[in-house]
Formats: sequence, C-alpha cells, structure tokens
Amino acid sequence: MKVILAKKYGFCFGVKRAIKIAEKNRFATTFGELIHNPKEIARLKNDFGVGMSNNLAEIDTNNAVIVRTHGITKGDLEILKSKNATIIDATCPFVTKPQNIVKEMSAKEYQIFIFGDKTHPEVKGVASYGDNVHIIASVEELDSIKLHKKIALLSQTTKQIEHFCAIASYLLSRTHECRVFNTICNATFDNQSAVEELSKEVDVMVIVGGKNSSNTKQLLDIAKKHCADSYLVEDECELNAKWFENKRVCGISAGASTPGWIIKKVENKIREI
Amino acid sequence: MKVILAKKYGFCFGVKRAIKIAEKNRFATTFGELIHNPKEIARLKNDFGVGMSNNLAEIDTNNAVIVRTHGITKGDLEILKSKNATIIDATCPFVTKPQNIVKEMSAKEYQIFIFGDKTHPEVKGVASYGDNVHIIASVEELDSIKLHKKIALLSQTTKQIEHFCAIASYLLSRTHECRVFNTICNATFDNQSAVEELSKEVDVMVIVGGKNSSNTKQLLDIAKKHCADSYLVEDECELNAKWFENKRVCGISAGASTPGWIIKKVENKIREI
Repeated sequence: MKVILAKKYGFCFGVKRAIKIAEKNRFATTFGELIHNPKEIARLKNDFGVGMSNNLAEIDTNNAVIVRTHGITKGDLEILKSKNATIIDATCPFVTKPQNIVKEMSAKEYQIFIFGDKTHPEVKGVASYGDNVHIIASVEELDSIKLHKKIALLSQTTKQIEHFCAIASYLLSRTHECRVFNTICNATFDNQSAVEELSKEVDVMVIVGGKNSSNTKQLLDIAKKHCADSYLVEDECELNAKWFENKRVCGISAGASTPGWIIKKVENKIREI
Repeated sequence: MKVILAKKYGFCFGVKRAIKIAEKNRFATTFGELIHNPKEIARLKNDFGVGMSNNLAEIDTNNAVIVRTHGITKGDLEILKSKNATIIDATCPFVTKPQNIVKEMSAKEYQIFIFGDKTHPEVKGVASYGDNVHIIASVEELDSIKLHKKIALLSQTTKQIEHFCAIASYLLSRTHECRVFNTICNATFDNQSAVEELSKEVDVMVIVGGKNSSNTKQLLDIAKKHCADSYLVEDECELNAKWFENKRVCGISAGASTPGWIIKKVENKIREI
C-alpha cells in the first residue's frame, strides 16, 4: 500500500508545551486529562510518574498539580488555590486568550456566544470567565435565544472556520454590533487544510487520534467529505485490513494530541498491508 | 392589469425627516442633492424655493445651508463652518451612526472596512471620519489588501445583508478580531424583504425611484432574481406598454427616496394598461 502523510498533522504547539511541562514535573498530578490521548497519558505515567485525577476533592496536593492543556474553570482554579496546591499552568496560550476575551467582553456587558461543545473541558473553562455566556453547537440553536444589541462571538480553538462563519453571519445580520474573535488556532487551521487537500487525492484515509479529541473528530469529518473511506484509529491495533482491499493509496493525518510514535506505528502497519 | 404593491416601500424615516427640514427652511440651499430623487428636488425648489449647489466655493451662505440626507465629508463640513454658514443638518441618524463608529474605531486603531460604493456621497462622508479606511464593493477586492489583526467592518446603509455577511466571513477567517457593525438600516431591510416576497408572485415588477439611488438599485437587483421582467422607472412616463403584454399581475415597489405622489401616478398608469 502506498502511503502519503498530510503536509501538516499531529502535535500542536500547546500539546508539545504541555508534555514538556509534565515531563519536567515528575510525580505531579494533572487535573483532568493533560491532552486527549490516552496512550500518551499512559506513557507520562509510566516514564515520569505523572498521575491524573478527575476529582478536585481528592486530588493529591503534596505534589504539584498541573492544569491541563484545555484549561479549567475559574471556580476549579479557585478551589485549587484554596487548597494551597502548587499549581503549574499547562493551559495552551491559545486557550488562555479566549478565557481573557470572555472576561473582558463580560466586563463590557456584551452578550457572549461560544461556538463549541458544551461538554468539552476547554469550552467549560472559557465560558466560566463570563456572565451571560451561551455555548452553541449549531446555527439552529440560536433561534431560541433573545439577542442583545452588542454581541461577542468566539470559538472553541478546534472548530471549522466555515461553521464559525455561518454562526457569525446569523448573528451579525440580527444585531447592531457583533465582535467576532477568531480563536480557532493556527495548528487547527493548518491540519484541517492539509487533510482536506490530501483526502481529495487518496483512496482511503486514516486519522490517528483520541476518540475524545475534538480536533481529531474535525479532521475525520473533513476527510469524509472528500474520501468516503475515512477511518479514525487510536493506534495500529485498530486498523482493519478490509478497509484497504482494492485500494492503492492511503492518506494519513493525526490530531493535535497524537504523538509521533503512535503515528509511526500506524504508518508502518499500513505500509505492510 | 392587476397591481399589487409591496408590503413595505418608499420613503424611509431619514428621507421624510430631511424633506420636512427642507420644507421648514424656505430659500435654503442643500449642499448636494438632498435625497436621490430629481422630481422631489424639483418640487422643493418650486414650492419652497430650496435650491441646490454642488460647489462649496460658490455656495450661497446668505441663506441657511442644509446638509444632505447622506451626510457630507468631515472636510466639507469644516469648510462650511469656516464660511460661517448657518448649517442645518439633515443627515439621516442612520448615517450619523456609522460616521461616529468610524471615528471611534479609528481612534482605537482598528483597520476599517466600509462595504459600499466609493463614489456614493454617504460612503465618502462616513469614510472621511477615520484613518486607515478601505472602501470595498466586493469580496474580491479584499485579496490585495494586507489585513491587520484588529479590523472593524461596517456597511453603506442600503446594501444587501447577504453580501455584507460574505465580506465579514472573509475578514473574520483571516484576522484575530473583526468587529462587525451592522449599519444597514431597517427601512432598507424591510423594503428588500418585501420586494423579494412580492417578486416571487408576480409576472412583472416595476421599481419606482431615482436612477442614482443606491437602495433603489438594490431593490431592482433583488426583484430581478425572482422575476426576470423587472424594470426601474423614475416616473410614469418611462413605463413601456410592451413590458405588460401577456402579463396578468404587476408588482410595484419604490426606493426610500421616492415620494408617494410619483408612486401613485405610476400605479394608476399601470392599472389602465
């Protein structure tokens, strides 16, 4: 099987930075998953003793607590501080930015809309910094919301720009001022453009990444538009030989939280097919 | 011929207000055309002695000078003031608003984009209130402009919202913050929606208005999308009997600067056909 890697894929700046922080802080605990990739989290546990807890009440504050790449809510940060924990902030700067925007726009009394997934930790964290914040996943959800005259709109960092523009268009045609902050991160843009380009040229696409990773799901979504035979795997064991029957060229991309060593294993296994 | 009038058409708030101001100021001079309708301007001249001058150097300042509905440039206003003219401001408040927005955004160092017609007096006036202002008529024109990180976008009051949204989408996907001010006026919205609705139901559409009127041209443009046999006339003399051959129902709309008495004459003549 001939294999082509996307021009851009895998680890983004924020994830690389968070992993370096974790590796430097042996035996620290991350509050929530540091990044959305279970295999990399397991490696940090095995090689560096970095643990993970989802429970603030029980979190070990004898060692440092690392704030995850996606950030945490303002309330959770205050609880950590009240526990006198040593807090090490691995929040991606591209997530700190929308947190600050929400804080500022809220102080200026804008009605705030975040295009994103209500259940995603990044979005929960960003939303916690303001009042009058609406999290919406689609244009349709806007119909039931009474719009103010001054609106601020921002996006989860990993969303697709076309969908964001559709939401902006809806809002700006129905209000006086719509202040749109393009908080989709460059790595997301680049990985998405590259997967779009590659998926038009191949017979089958494999996206490597965590099943709970937002940006990985977006890559799969884009790939499927151009290549019906597109699949998401967390590692090489999930590959299915049937996907490659009668196919000539396979494209590979990977989410921003997928480490190179997993991508390499997937690539090697596909080449052998 | 059966005739149906659009649900909303004709004089907007700003035009009605400007005409009242002119009627109250006999023998005043308007700097530029008060509104974009030559027949109404002729009526104001005949009935109220209100003249018109396009030349600031020669304008008669013995009587009051009326600032036109579309506003004038900051520089021209300063010249009028320096001549100690009695200035009566008939600028539509929906035009004063974008002038003030440009002033404020310019002070805050935003790069400013106005979606509009470079040659239109409203746009010239609004643009004059800021530095670093680009006037663009289409998305394509944006390709050659280096975009800043902080952009403010506004529109000529009479543009179509769909085109405005397309420009906003282009800009917001290529910058960090795009502050979109929806300065398209409600009367424009309402007249446009009504002409869209009506033009789907009739065999022929007649739009009444000045040929130099931006909002009138937009109405014609929208009507033509749904009814190929759509025509623009300034008065009943321009109607052509051939347009109505083998037609059953005629729709009528009129620009925001078209007085009711002209619309009535057009309506009556079409009914006789």
